[in-house]
Amino acid sequence: MEAEEASAKRARASEDGEGAAPMAVEDGKEAAAAAGDGISAVIPGWFSEISPMWPGEAHSLKVEKVLFQGKSDYQNVLVFQSSTYGKVLVLDGVIQVTERDECAYQEMITHLSLCSIPDPKKILVIGGGDGGVLREVSRYSSVEQIDICEIDKMVVDVSKQFFPHLAIGFEDPRVNLHIGDGVAFMKSLPEGTYDAVIVDSSDPIGPAQELFEKPFFESVARALRPGGVVCTQAESIWLHMHIIEDIVSVCRQVFKGSVNYAWTTVPTYPSGVIGFMLCSTEGPSVDFQHPVYKIEENDESNKSKGPLKFYNSEIHSAAFCLPSFAKRVIESKTD
Amino acid sequence: MEAEEASAKRARASEDGEGAAPMAVEDGKEAAAAAGDGISAVIPGWFSEISPMWPGEAHSLKVEKVLFQGKSDYQNVLVFQSSTYGKVLVLDGVIQVTERDECAYQEMITHLSLCSIPDPKKILVIGGGDGGVLREVSRYSSVEQIDICEIDKMVVDVSKQFFPHLAIGFEDPRVNLHIGDGVAFMKSLPEGTYDAVIVDSSDPIGPAQELFEKPFFESVARALRPGGVVCTQAESIWLHMHIIEDIVSVCRQVFKGSVNYAWTTVPTYPSGVIGFMLCSTEGPSVDFQHPVYKIEENDESNKSKGPLKFYNSEIHSAAFCLPSFAKRVIESKTD
Repeated sequence: MEAEEASAKRARASEDGEGAAPMAVEDGKEAAAAAGDGISAVIPGWFSEISPMWPGEAHSLKVEKVLFQGKSDYQNVLVFQSSTYGKVLVLDGVIQVTERDECAYQEMITHLSLCSIPDPKKILVIGGGDGGVLREVSRYSSVEQIDICEIDKMVVDVSKQFFPHLAIGFEDPRVNLHIGDGVAFMKSLPEGTYDAVIVDSSDPIGPAQELFEKPFFESVARALRPGGVVCTQAESIWLHMHIIEDIVSVCRQVFKGSVNYAWTTVPTYPSGVIGFMLCSTEGPSVDFQHPVYKIEENDESNKSKGPLKFYNSEIHSAAFCLPSFAKRVIESKTD
Repeated sequence: MEAEEASAKRARASEDGEGAAPMAVEDGKEAAAAAGDGISAVIPGWFSEISPMWPGEAHSLKVEKVLFQGKSDYQNVLVFQSSTYGKVLVLDGVIQVTERDECAYQEMITHLSLCSIPDPKKILVIGGGDGGVLREVSRYSSVEQIDICEIDKMVVDVSKQFFPHLAIGFEDPRVNLHIGDGVAFMKSLPEGTYDAVIVDSSDPIGPAQELFEKPFFESVARALRPGGVVCTQAESIWLHMHIIEDIVSVCRQVFKGSVNYAWTTVPTYPSGVIGFMLCSTEGPSVDFQHPVYKIEENDESNKSKGPLKFYNSEIHSAAFCLPSFAKRVIESKTD
């Protein structure tokens, strides 16, 4: 899929309202189209994740009980108890978090960025309304201020109600929660404010679309101090190489320090992996592949939240090693 | 799940014939339980992979056309054309190969072992009847002899008919194909024969069960030369840590050189990852994490088969870096 096609596809998906068409069925009986505009068939009693972002495949989880279904101003919100992955948060039909594997995503998106710079103090999170990234950021004793801008208050409320191990992140007194549009919030910021920006977004269909576009990255670069870093959710090398190519190209234009792609395993994300763009602004150089800080050796960070489940310095460095098919494409954009 | 439970579960699954219960439906119409003993519900027109090995979740692929359905002496064999993953080979309801992502598995299981030793000459493959591992082994000009023992001739025949890019491995004149039981074949071998043994097995439910047990590993160790290496398929860290614990324990008892666990991404395998046990016998030491040979720089290996799609030396080393939850368990077994 070429870049133009990808954009066209995103637009088409939005127009047709076919962003994702899930169904969750409670207690094995046909019922309750959870969100989106329904779908002809699912496994009864199971939640199936079907989307034009990953045509021809679907991951399904067995539903024990639907805990919440709502429609916010921005998206459909679903929480269910699965039989083997704990509680699951779904936005517009796409799995965002399961209790069983959320550690991989939250720990990697946070520590890949914050362990790459010395003594991070001011952090901004865009999206991330479940609180999981905040939980990880709050492990750093150097951090003085954690701003978060989440567009959808319902995500925050639902997380506080059903995902206490994620929402614990909101309890840190350094956290300032802003409910609003991340794009507008970024533009409103004074220049050179943050040591790190973490963009914990959903896919580029729906409310997160602008978070994958050049004007947004430009506003991120402006908001960072010299040598500051950004880490953004950047899709799957197995499914979305053309989207990744576009993001890499834009980031090379916008960020004058380092531009790197890393990835990790998350079983309940499509294709089982998710990637991250890690970039730094002009200034003190950042070598993302060789972290300057070993958070896993810091007892202080474990006190209230327990030890890290997934992240360690070795897997940090390994995350930047790409399969040849992806390396060839990404390096051709970064040289 | 404790080891005893795992064994009990395997036994139970075999007895009940509930190894896996898939259904493939052609052209969107309800039809054709592909294999196993049927299942109450699937997404019509989709193949759904449901198994007691990964309860509560299922990965589904859209079926364009069922190309082959058969029952061999050992298992149910299904080949279908999927809409986005190319042709798919399914044994007893479990996806073994898709054309889109087979590169990751075949290249990693082969080159993780063969790039770790200098000048491999005599290679044995157990299982691997699709020919994909043979294709990768045949990239090495140092190799003089490639023996393969596959239990199920139907797998070989089906691969030759539907998966020419895998079955090309059988065309190498160094290959000797034995149809038979891998466990018996291993026992029949003279001591110290092979530089490397690659065990490309299905899951420990069904015909591959014995390939995960101590007597088999002991026969592998006997068949290897001093400092020879084995690489076996070793399940998912997200799903099967207790099976992996058992395998690591057995391998530490049997192999007196190195014992290591590595892993990689394969989107169509459950949880999106698959692991490998890499062990060496007493003799010249083997440092699996630092390969002695860079096959991706060898033009000769690319001549007939094209460049490697997935494997490179960086991803080789990265494959040994484990998430903390897995590292803690595996290191406790290996220290």
